[in-house]
Amino acid sequence: MKEEKVRENIQNLGEEEVVRRLVKMLPQDGQVLVGPGDDCAVVDAGGEELLLLKTDAVVSGVHFLPETDSARVGWKAAARVVSDFGAMGGGARELLVTIAAVPDCEMAWVEGLYRGLTRCAQQFGASIVGGETVGLPAGSPAMVSVAGTGRVKRDGFVTRAGGAEGEGLFVTGRLGGSFASGRHLDFVPRVQEGQWLAQHATAMMDLSDGLRRDLPRMAVASDCGFELDLQRLPRHKGCSVSQALGDGEDMELLLAGPRGDWEEDFRRVFPELDLTWVGQLTEKGRELGLEGEGAGWEHFKER
Amino acid sequence: MKEEKVRENIQNLGEEEVVRRLVKMLPQDGQVLVGPGDDCAVVDAGGEELLLLKTDAVVSGVHFLPETDSARVGWKAAARVVSDFGAMGGGARELLVTIAAVPDCEMAWVEGLYRGLTRCAQQFGASIVGGETVGLPAGSPAMVSVAGTGRVKRDGFVTRAGGAEGEGLFVTGRLGGSFASGRHLDFVPRVQEGQWLAQHATAMMDLSDGLRRDLPRMAVASDCGFELDLQRLPRHKGCSVSQALGDGEDMELLLAGPRGDWEEDFRRVFPELDLTWVGQLTEKGRELGLEGEGAGWEHFKER
Repeated sequence: MKEEKVRENIQNLGEEEVVRRLVKMLPQDGQVLVGPGDDCAVVDAGGEELLLLKTDAVVSGVHFLPETDSARVGWKAAARVVSDFGAMGGGARELLVTIAAVPDCEMAWVEGLYRGLTRCAQQFGASIVGGETVGLPAGSPAMVSVAGTGRVKRDGFVTRAGGAEGEGLFVTGRLGGSFASGRHLDFVPRVQEGQWLAQHATAMMDLSDGLRRDLPRMAVASDCGFELDLQRLPRHKGCSVSQALGDGEDMELLLAGPRGDWEEDFRRVFPELDLTWVGQLTEKGRELGLEGEGAGWEHFKER
Repeated sequence: MKEEKVRENIQNLGEEEVVRRLVKMLPQDGQVLVGPGDDCAVVDAGGEELLLLKTDAVVSGVHFLPETDSARVGWKAAARVVSDFGAMGGGARELLVTIAAVPDCEMAWVEGLYRGLTRCAQQFGASIVGGETVGLPAGSPAMVSVAGTGRVKRDGFVTRAGGAEGEGLFVTGRLGGSFASGRHLDFVPRVQEGQWLAQHATAMMDLSDGLRRDLPRMAVASDCGFELDLQRLPRHKGCSVSQALGDGEDMELLLAGPRGDWEEDFRRVFPELDLTWVGQLTEKGRELGLEGEGAGWEHFKER
């Protein structure tokens, strides 16, 4: 009601605060085991397995360039959702695709997009069961939104919230330089790995916004602090620590869990993928290792 | 490969042809009972009921105006998806919401949108379980995409494809003038009515694009033709036959089924909603009653 107050918009509030406020408004019912705020929602629909629900969008000029091969855009759009299912310990089953584009968007671009979507869906055992095309005014950027349903074993899902003080923190693969290298368009979602790790992880998520932003999210959800050992960060060739922390779109898994023989087991089962201990969860309030630069990837808010 | 050929784009091909081509590319598996092309996909996830899946988007300047009260936009965005579940004979259970907007989009607008989304979800027994906000470049129109999962009894779902020659065609409510009157923002999805009608209908869908475009879709899916009695069309006050056929966004139910006592039963159970016999399914190839003007609502293609 104060006239002098600057109006709140989604940029000056930032994505985290926007989501925090909206989540408070939402109705939930008893079938919803995990609601907004994790990689996926988890719902008990009465089947042998639980349902996972997730939606994710990519926008031209933000997540891909107008000149990017649309098959790679399609792969990325599907793989981001598939990755979230893997990060819960489950897998993707059905995808719905929404394409919003200007009327003169070429059919060849759309068909290329669907080739990429379809290739990713088939590789990870999902069906594309529907979707729609929406016309946008001339000059608007193309947007591809993928909503998916997945399945996870009743006793097999892992959220961001189960970590405990003293547990180790681990990441799969290597971090940094995803945009610069083009990896963000071709990454392989860690689905089999996520399902395997779900046996040992107490908390897990995929690294879409960069460790700098995603690790505090997992720590807060688990009601813990953390100590990150920057010397141990598995970096992609040519990437600085700052890039490994902040570039985002790594789409690797971040997990917490007690250290143990499973680490070596993982390396035997998945010999081509690194699993690196990078620190530990601590008492709440500590946040060691994220000082300094490297902002992470946030929509809306200016860096 | 022909240089002289005009390049195909989504406008000159039209929405129907775009969808037809894309659907041919899609992988499906055995759990998918109904794939793309109906109001919802139907999936057997092993529970007592079947899953319904649907996604639908509204865009500023196309489906609502920038100055429209955002709570009404939210209601509409959710109600369109809820309506599709009703048109299959089922109900909505979980919704995921994607908001794509420019960075200076006011938080008050987003909160209003969520009030409308939440009000619709609660009224129809659904939970909003997640979603995301996506930043768009300045000048882009806001878009709200709602993906939903619903449930329907194993023996209770009705597609567009089950109609047979000689069966009656019926619509609920009244048609025409939805945009001009503002009804497209406040319509009540026919969920209870759809569930009731699913006991008697052989084919059913919701009228989102207008009878002129939606009836041929049902007829084609059912491998039939049709005769429409234009004199019988239940029109909103002040609407011409052409408007009732072509305005779109009526969000009433169109169904086929053998005539019978159930028509009177419906009127007793739902005394405030009209159910009108408007024609019949015929042998394939006949399309009587849609001659003349009234183009129906098609994205991309110019009228």
